[in-house]
Amino acid sequence: MIRVGIVGGSGYGGVELLRILSKHPQAQLVAITSRKEAGIRVADAFPSLRGSIDMRFSDPSATDFSGCDVVFFATPTGVAMQQAPMLLEAGVRVIDLAADFRLQDLQEWKKWYGTQHACPALVPESVYGLPELNRERISKARIVGVPGCYATAIQLGFLPMVEAGAVDALGLIADAKSGVSGAGRRTEVHLLFSEAADNLKAYGVSGHRHLPEILSGLTQAAGRRVEVTFIPHLTPMIRGIHATLYARLTKEVDLQALYEERFSREPFVDVLPAGSEPDTRSVRGANMCRVAVHRPRGGDTVVVLSVIDNLVKGAAGQAVQNMNLMFGLTESMGLEGLALLP
Amino acid sequence: MIRVGIVGGSGYGGVELLRILSKHPQAQLVAITSRKEAGIRVADAFPSLRGSIDMRFSDPSATDFSGCDVVFFATPTGVAMQQAPMLLEAGVRVIDLAADFRLQDLQEWKKWYGTQHACPALVPESVYGLPELNRERISKARIVGVPGCYATAIQLGFLPMVEAGAVDALGLIADAKSGVSGAGRRTEVHLLFSEAADNLKAYGVSGHRHLPEILSGLTQAAGRRVEVTFIPHLTPMIRGIHATLYARLTKEVDLQALYEERFSREPFVDVLPAGSEPDTRSVRGANMCRVAVHRPRGGDTVVVLSVIDNLVKGAAGQAVQNMNLMFGLTESMGLEGLALLP
Amino acid sequence: MIRVGIVGGSGYGGVELLRILSKHPQAQLVAITSRKEAGIRVADAFPSLRGSIDMRFSDPSATDFSGCDVVFFATPTGVAMQQAPMLLEAGVRVIDLAADFRLQDLQEWKKWYGTQHACPALVPESVYGLPELNRERISKARIVGVPGCYATAIQLGFLPMVEAGAVDALGLIADAKSGVSGAGRRTEVHLLFSEAADNLKAYGVSGHRHLPEILSGLTQAAGRRVEVTFIPHLTPMIRGIHATLYARLTKEVDLQALYEERFSREPFVDVLPAGSEPDTRSVRGANMCRVAVHRPRGGDTVVVLSVIDNLVKGAAGQAVQNMNLMFGLTESMGLEGLALLP
Amino acid sequence: MIRVGIVGGSGYGGVELLRILSKHPQAQLVAITSRKEAGIRVADAFPSLRGSIDMRFSDPSATDFSGCDVVFFATPTGVAMQQAPMLLEAGVRVIDLAADFRLQDLQEWKKWYGTQHACPALVPESVYGLPELNRERISKARIVGVPGCYATAIQLGFLPMVEAGAVDALGLIADAKSGVSGAGRRTEVHLLFSEAADNLKAYGVSGHRHLPEILSGLTQAAGRRVEVTFIPHLTPMIRGIHATLYARLTKEVDLQALYEERFSREPFVDVLPAGSEPDTRSVRGANMCRVAVHRPRGGDTVVVLSVIDNLVKGAAGQAVQNMNLMFGLTESMGLEGLALLP
Repeated sequence: MIRVGIVGGSGYGGVELLRILSKHPQAQLVAITSRKEAGIRVADAFPSLRGSIDMRFSDPSATDFSGCDVVFFATPTGVAMQQAPMLLEAGVRVIDLAADFRLQDLQEWKKWYGTQHACPALVPESVYGLPELNRERISKARIVGVPGCYATAIQLGFLPMVEAGAVDALGLIADAKSGVSGAGRRTEVHLLFSEAADNLKAYGVSGHRHLPEILSGLTQAAGRRVEVTFIPHLTPMIRGIHATLYARLTKEVDLQALYEERFSREPFVDVLPAGSEPDTRSVRGANMCRVAVHRPRGGDTVVVLSVIDNLVKGAAGQAVQNMNLMFGLTESMGLEGLALLP
Repeated sequence: MIRVGIVGGSGYGGVELLRILSKHPQAQLVAITSRKEAGIRVADAFPSLRGSIDMRFSDPSATDFSGCDVVFFATPTGVAMQQAPMLLEAGVRVIDLAADFRLQDLQEWKKWYGTQHACPALVPESVYGLPELNRERISKARIVGVPGCYATAIQLGFLPMVEAGAVDALGLIADAKSGVSGAGRRTEVHLLFSEAADNLKAYGVSGHRHLPEILSGLTQAAGRRVEVTFIPHLTPMIRGIHATLYARLTKEVDLQALYEERFSREPFVDVLPAGSEPDTRSVRGANMCRVAVHRPRGGDTVVVLSVIDNLVKGAAGQAVQNMNLMFGLTESMGLEGLALLP
Repeated sequence: MIRVGIVGGSGYGGVELLRILSKHPQAQLVAITSRKEAGIRVADAFPSLRGSIDMRFSDPSATDFSGCDVVFFATPTGVAMQQAPMLLEAGVRVIDLAADFRLQDLQEWKKWYGTQHACPALVPESVYGLPELNRERISKARIVGVPGCYATAIQLGFLPMVEAGAVDALGLIADAKSGVSGAGRRTEVHLLFSEAADNLKAYGVSGHRHLPEILSGLTQAAGRRVEVTFIPHLTPMIRGIHATLYARLTKEVDLQALYEERFSREPFVDVLPAGSEPDTRSVRGANMCRVAVHRPRGGDTVVVLSVIDNLVKGAAGQAVQNMNLMFGLTESMGLEGLALLP
Repeated sequence: MIRVGIVGGSGYGGVELLRILSKHPQAQLVAITSRKEAGIRVADAFPSLRGSIDMRFSDPSATDFSGCDVVFFATPTGVAMQQAPMLLEAGVRVIDLAADFRLQDLQEWKKWYGTQHACPALVPESVYGLPELNRERISKARIVGVPGCYATAIQLGFLPMVEAGAVDALGLIADAKSGVSGAGRRTEVHLLFSEAADNLKAYGVSGHRHLPEILSGLTQAAGRRVEVTFIPHLTPMIRGIHATLYARLTKEVDLQALYEERFSREPFVDVLPAGSEPDTRSVRGANMCRVAVHRPRGGDTVVVLSVIDNLVKGAAGQAVQNMNLMFGLTESMGLEGLALLP
């Protein structure tokens, strides 16, 4: 059994980790912290967990994680990097669901997150936790930065054609639509039901924090410079990301075959039959990315549709997938749950 | 392994049975029929099942269920009673998610369903599949009628105080709110997104088909005549029933203790701490009924809040719970999934 | 032209007042305050008002309302009572959308609002602004307390049978379902989209602040003591209240005729034909209460269905209706807008 | 007063026409037909109209429109073209909300609609009813084809830069998100609440019927060939279209100034300040298109955000705007209603 700690258990990433890990056959929860909810029973904060999790949230500052094998950080960006050095020293591995270990370029990191990185010395050994891109390195990592939700859907959708050099890598467009839970459990006006329901809007048009990791991952995949225009949208659903990706084809290629081949051994990427248009609900609650590739009216513009559940393949599920790889378990252990439909 | 057939696999009850049974350790799906979808791959109709179910819908008239141990009917009322006699004769047990075997009184049945019952001779041996009321008889049954979704939430909420004779059984009120999936996958105008979203209405005020089974179950529990005013409401959520129950207390009783005691050994009824107000989402996707009992301002009126997922504890999950009982399996086998929150 | 000021223009009551008053033929907006948004253009905060309102929010402490004929308070409870005395002295009438002037009983007021009333001397002359109950007194009032949203739907639904003494006034039950905007624009976790969508729950079961005004209004109507069990529910819609009301009939009466007669001259109460079940969306955006009265299965229990838009007939619209009465205008002026459907 | 008839009054376009026209100071409704609802009172089918419209739906085949000045067709494509010749002959003008008169190229029309046009001789004189493009011709037209909802949002968003020749007209991309009411009131499975709620998907990727009119309108505006990759998405809201438009800049231009100048005299196009990201709800219920133009990170890719209410500026409101032009009325008459927010 892997002894697991969770920092920041009361947000959406945290409760989703709890849902998954409480049923994981090789994981044993030993500590869950929450500043806001310290002292409260987890099942009182989340009645959905009644009967499954019999623990209380503890105070982060009073919690000793040194007996853990791994600690998940389901906290805002900036927390994991404070604690990672001490944990690593104690032999504890770190999986961060926020952005502390998603970028190697510390200049870029500072530009987007507005502060100096707290443990620059550890960044070089940290691994960007997209298994479809970095499986080997993840399996040996002590620190993993789990990709952002948008970044997961977008990179997986672009990967095959970017790797194949089949498209103009400097003119990629990613129009992405997210459910509201992607913004976390923050109490901000625009996330209120009465604001977000029956409404839709773009945001972050001038630049979204997931852009640098998308560029970095795709540059690694392409082996050359990549440019992406990325426009996220807030849409009235709880979970789900639908990325609609546009690229200009630069050489003839059988796109359907390319995608099927590229992901044929991936347990959590499902290439749909030609002509398909995936629903986000087809992955609601599941650790799965479903992808369809199109070439409308036979033109030069490739359109890829890529859907995930932002809290599962886009956060907690992918985090557990990373844990499985890091500890030599079957990659899909604990992640076999099917989507809830309707 | 129990060999399982499903008739009517393409509605919401059917797809939920597929989701649950495909992960059930002792169930093996051998046939799924659908008139509308015959010949189509199950996973094409429901991409959420891709990778888990590799079967096609077959035509009901061309499907031989004689090799099954049990057949679930996820069909409209009136189908199971046509086929049950033949199946029983072939040694196949029957679990009907519709209303064919919910009532013993055939006059009453005819009144509500507008037609003669097709196999009146089998009705006396059929069992009303509410395990919390009829567990023993279910375990020996060949035919089970799974309770309606409203009927489950309402009966479980009223049971302890009605059994205890603590309330005026002739003045019960059940104000119930349902998600839209409770109406099934029927293409009717009032079930369209543009009609049902951001809207709420009562319906069936003059009489709803779940009323007779509620009266019958509660009469059995009370040991005397019971009257219920039952008003269902259509509310803009996909899944979930919230029953708000009102009764006039006729003797002093510790309601919290009464409820906790009554359900203490029930795996799928969770009595919440005093003062609680359950969310429907706390059971979304889970085979669970959560109940809270209140006595507002210390008056004579008891208020019980009872929530279920109409497709799980209110349909497919309860059907599998019945199957487990009928075949001597652990009652909760395959039903341990936690609610999806948020 | 009536010169109008609004205190607290950036909440939902405020923006709805702006929508209505900007098209009101006899109202001229002269000042709008907002502590949070002071200095900001109204149309920047609410782009829906671009082109219609060319003003900025001003700071409440720096705003002089003495040139106004009337000031609306769309603020939390406790603000209007601080400023009402000064305004009245300056000859300005006051319409409060919060609870400062809804109760005559100051002991009761203190019990529910947890503080001493700031201007007890003015309370006796203030009028509870339910036109269907107090039209005459409103037309002469200097201070009006606009009823709460739940209180409006519930009182209008009970009025005819309570006035007629036709039901057991000590056993009334009001099961009410509200859209999320009823809770205002407060940034609280349970009001987030990801919490409130696809979910439904009761709240305030032990006692809700609208209860005392309901009791007070119905007691006035009945001419004797009234008891109501009132259970509010939070439901996943933006606007709308659906009150389902239960009462035990104590004498024979033609309910449909009673309701039609009672409201025959009311411009904003619509009694539906016998057998109707009103949608909340049939009043979305409109200053209207639609009511249907039922007697299920001919029994003793009367069921009334009463729907309003909580922000219009339940707040801003009713406030303007009061203004029209106070200034001798046609009662429906500026309030003729039809519901938005779908 | 203009005497108005409506064919097909029971769909969403029809009920929205009724909402708008019943308050239009110069319109008098004289006949409303509906095959399905013939004989039924309009206000029984749409209780939101109770008190405003005191008419019954009549049977289309038994209705004489010869006394009308104008007839609106809120019917499926293929109906208006059957009746237009007779109406024109009787001196009645025709405004079609469907696609019968949106295309001049009858070959193209047949390709998309699968049948021969029924009155090819009238097509040349029919005018595409986008006032921002064809105001002059509309004012003299006898037959107007009201643009599709997507087509309105997309053309208005592209117009200024296409007219200015500032972008690569052969590489335009339109990623559009629509509320479910855009699909009409058709009873199809994918439009059910339980299918469309909490879900998002692309559709019509291989080609959508609004594409040819978009190409035709933009070609007219550009004065040369235009190519658009247009991907529509179904999103869980009732009303609203959000078009996110991408184009490659081919010459330096002040985009904000270009847009403000182009639309400065348009009553129903609102160019937002630089940096804005419009909500669809800012136009919910209003005849308005709000547009924002961006150039993310200063690159070559222009991003335009364009929102409308698909039933108002995208259908019934624009139809009335056309009527106002055709009859020499103030263009905005009856269309001043503000958006409903929240």
